[in-house]
Amino acid sequence: MSHTGRPGRQGFTLGELAVRHGCELRGDPALMVESVAPIGLAGPGSLTFLANPKLLAELRHTAATAVVLDAATVDESPVAALVVSNPHATYARIACELYPAAPVTAGVHPSAIIAASATIDASAWIGPHTVIGDGVTVGARVSVGPGCILEEGVALANDVRVIGRATMCRDVRIGARSVVHPGAVIGSDGFGFANDRGTWLKVPQVGSVMVGDDVEIGANTTIDRGAIGDTIIEDGVKLDNQIQIGHNVRIGAHSALAACVGVSGSATIGKRCMIGGAAGIVGHLSICDDVAVTGLTMVSSSITEPGMYSSGWPAERTGDWRRVVARVKRVERLVERISKLERVGRDAQNVDKKQEQE
Amino acid sequence: MSHTGRPGRQGFTLGELAVRHGCELRGDPALMVESVAPIGLAGPGSLTFLANPKLLAELRHTAATAVVLDAATVDESPVAALVVSNPHATYARIACELYPAAPVTAGVHPSAIIAASATIDASAWIGPHTVIGDGVTVGARVSVGPGCILEEGVALANDVRVIGRATMCRDVRIGARSVVHPGAVIGSDGFGFANDRGTWLKVPQVGSVMVGDDVEIGANTTIDRGAIGDTIIEDGVKLDNQIQIGHNVRIGAHSALAACVGVSGSATIGKRCMIGGAAGIVGHLSICDDVAVTGLTMVSSSITEPGMYSSGWPAERTGDWRRVVARVKRVERLVERISKLERVGRDAQNVDKKQEQE
Amino acid sequence: MSHTGRPGRQGFTLGELAVRHGCELRGDPALMVESVAPIGLAGPGSLTFLANPKLLAELRHTAATAVVLDAATVDESPVAALVVSNPHATYARIACELYPAAPVTAGVHPSAIIAASATIDASAWIGPHTVIGDGVTVGARVSVGPGCILEEGVALANDVRVIGRATMCRDVRIGARSVVHPGAVIGSDGFGFANDRGTWLKVPQVGSVMVGDDVEIGANTTIDRGAIGDTIIEDGVKLDNQIQIGHNVRIGAHSALAACVGVSGSATIGKRCMIGGAAGIVGHLSICDDVAVTGLTMVSSSITEPGMYSSGWPAERTGDWRRVVARVKRVERLVERISKLERVGRDAQNVDKKQEQE
Repeated sequence: MSHTGRPGRQGFTLGELAVRHGCELRGDPALMVESVAPIGLAGPGSLTFLANPKLLAELRHTAATAVVLDAATVDESPVAALVVSNPHATYARIACELYPAAPVTAGVHPSAIIAASATIDASAWIGPHTVIGDGVTVGARVSVGPGCILEEGVALANDVRVIGRATMCRDVRIGARSVVHPGAVIGSDGFGFANDRGTWLKVPQVGSVMVGDDVEIGANTTIDRGAIGDTIIEDGVKLDNQIQIGHNVRIGAHSALAACVGVSGSATIGKRCMIGGAAGIVGHLSICDDVAVTGLTMVSSSITEPGMYSSGWPAERTGDWRRVVARVKRVERLVERISKLERVGRDAQNVDKKQEQE
Repeated sequence: MSHTGRPGRQGFTLGELAVRHGCELRGDPALMVESVAPIGLAGPGSLTFLANPKLLAELRHTAATAVVLDAATVDESPVAALVVSNPHATYARIACELYPAAPVTAGVHPSAIIAASATIDASAWIGPHTVIGDGVTVGARVSVGPGCILEEGVALANDVRVIGRATMCRDVRIGARSVVHPGAVIGSDGFGFANDRGTWLKVPQVGSVMVGDDVEIGANTTIDRGAIGDTIIEDGVKLDNQIQIGHNVRIGAHSALAACVGVSGSATIGKRCMIGGAAGIVGHLSICDDVAVTGLTMVSSSITEPGMYSSGWPAERTGDWRRVVARVKRVERLVERISKLERVGRDAQNVDKKQEQE
Repeated sequence: MSHTGRPGRQGFTLGELAVRHGCELRGDPALMVESVAPIGLAGPGSLTFLANPKLLAELRHTAATAVVLDAATVDESPVAALVVSNPHATYARIACELYPAAPVTAGVHPSAIIAASATIDASAWIGPHTVIGDGVTVGARVSVGPGCILEEGVALANDVRVIGRATMCRDVRIGARSVVHPGAVIGSDGFGFANDRGTWLKVPQVGSVMVGDDVEIGANTTIDRGAIGDTIIEDGVKLDNQIQIGHNVRIGAHSALAACVGVSGSATIGKRCMIGGAAGIVGHLSICDDVAVTGLTMVSSSITEPGMYSSGWPAERTGDWRRVVARVKRVERLVERISKLERVGRDAQNVDKKQEQE
């Protein structure tokens, strides 16, 4: 049985999609699509896309009504095609039309607790059991889902969406159209302690967190408030789930960090960087613009030139791996053996030369 | 002072335990146990077990009333023993009898917010401040603790237990008897963005998450909904805390993932796999059935044969470690030195041969 | 424009600060500070500090009213200085005076759900939508923020602060003055399963979690309850965000763990240890007192001597890194080439000796 995807809210003809998204259409403009589905599982009525060349074999057997793809692959399509130079982006735009976000219902759920001094735009929605502190401002068409905490002084710009069960601590600011997923904690204290003869004194964390426009903050991601200045997430940054951002970090516009990344305090990441999953960025360093870091990499000194950086070790059979580890940990012995061979070689040459001289 | 463990809800004689669990009993069948305790701390009235041979020395001095162990170690026990081939499993069964889960109290706490179109079985419990959306179905004897969010269309099968403060996003399905721990987020958006000339377009995440029967989902673990198909967690899978499962991942039945593991989008893990803590599984790859991966390992290409795989480096003194790192990063120089020695050797041989020929 | 920092609640003269904190004062004792700010951004009215020698250049241009620093750097200060041997600790104390924690308002929010058998000190605060179970005890001046869950039997000692949206499962104990940040889960079940012919049996987790005095537990950090004894966090331990502590772990007094660290079950960490971000500690091992572990290190066997330990690999260009990885994985071939050269060398020597003998 083919998987036609959950039906979207409405359908479109390929003709209108081609016009609206500037695609070349190969196929019948009257064909209608009303859902999206994976290329290998798509059925009648659904749209799919091809951006990953590894899926070319699946394209050849797709049962979708239409595929968004580029000129290089269009001839392989057995079905109607919307041809465009960046199929993933065009697919994203069409999928947004097929599955539009529900409009925000204005109002405040009666179980929400709202401080008298908070300013909630009349077009915003505040969900059940959400708690909003003194002086909070919530902009137009903002949606704050159930179970959130917005401490005093938090400011959400227009069209922010907080799905639910997120915490924003005092004075945190979130820019327009940003999205905050469940479990995220923004503006909790940074890890600031001064060692005083063996015990730790807490250093008050008096900065806050400034989040730009069009930022996405994943589920259970944590962003610490600044110790003595602000933590800054610039416009368009995308943070996946379970990321940890330390105090006074700055992340440049349009950078994307995959899940489980940790960024230590006072590190600066440039614009348009891409940080792979579970990478660790050491504190007090700087990564320039346009750097990519692959997954599980440790960045422990500043990066000053764009490019791709790595330090992860691919898995192998445990037995083989243990042999490699043992050998590498004794690499100095190999060096000694080489040095000895070199000395022997030099001595031999000297003997030869001496013999020649004799 | 010995630690006798928190008392269980009831006690059993060794005789009835031996019969019920198919153990050979060494000792007095009338002895009674009513709690469990660690082998080294157990006192009178408590039951302990030996599954880890490292604890054999502690067995010899245990003050427990009885020990569950296997035939190979029974002669070392100074106290009564229940002898069985898999002591850990039998211990688990007995401990479940001593500490049975409290029965679910039927009802809905008055502070819970339940959509009119939701269907809650009369035998289920919905805790305080929990929010349940349109069309949610909650099966028999389900317990949903305080502060949870079940968005529209979520379905919990019979006997599911959600401890509290967990989020299940729209249309997520959880199979029978599964357990969800606090802070878990199931079905939040996957990390799907299409790059469009330097900025990121959100790709609607229209799939959902299907969780099988008898699954356990740890505290603060996150499971993303599928981008364009579903994320699937098969029956009997055990996920520890703080795990991240990307969109469209599939995890095969009875696999167990330890804490802090990250699985990137569209990866497939087979059945009965065991993934060690903080391992990272790169996206769009496949791990076959019966694979074990040790902690902190990076799996960056598909694994097609059962067995154990690793890539973690054991710690050593920082000074020694830095020397190893420096040497390894210049390994090419060692290769050059070896190659030079080989060339010198070959030249010498050639000279020798030439001299012989002359 | 200079950044003078958020104003504190009150101001102090340098004269009174010098007396109260035992500093030597260089400058006008009548000068007043009322905020703290980063050394490079500080302006009039603000206090800053210098503890990191990397910021010496910024000191020379600071526009702060005064700087806390030590005797070695005081001559570089262009502004008034409070001179002391541990500037970070003294700064922390002064900042605590400038930004004192708000006093706890006694009371229980009407939306909180409190079991009749719970004992809440009259001076404590219980926030909105918090749920408190049977037999819970809450000490003097405790503050429990919004949306928390304290299951039955939880005990919070005097002056504990739970910011909000945290979960403490049954019987968890938290010592005096400890702080719990949002999203933390303390006392959820450990990951205990016994394998029974290919499927997993849950092992009841009957221990609890004992947290000492003056402990800090970061946002979204999880601490599992003991399987069959307790998990123990001793006095003065500082846990950053997103840390995972497995069942039956013990962490010694005044140890500090940075974000994203994972500690597997039954590991023991000594006193005054410092564990770097995202380090992984394997289960059932022991780390002695006064050990430092750098970030992303895997500790897979016990550490019995104080000192610093590492196993992280610093990133480099991906192309260079891949060459290193490929070479290292074939390190055995280098060993063979060296061995062969050694054999050739020995054979040649033997030939030489033989020729000499002839």
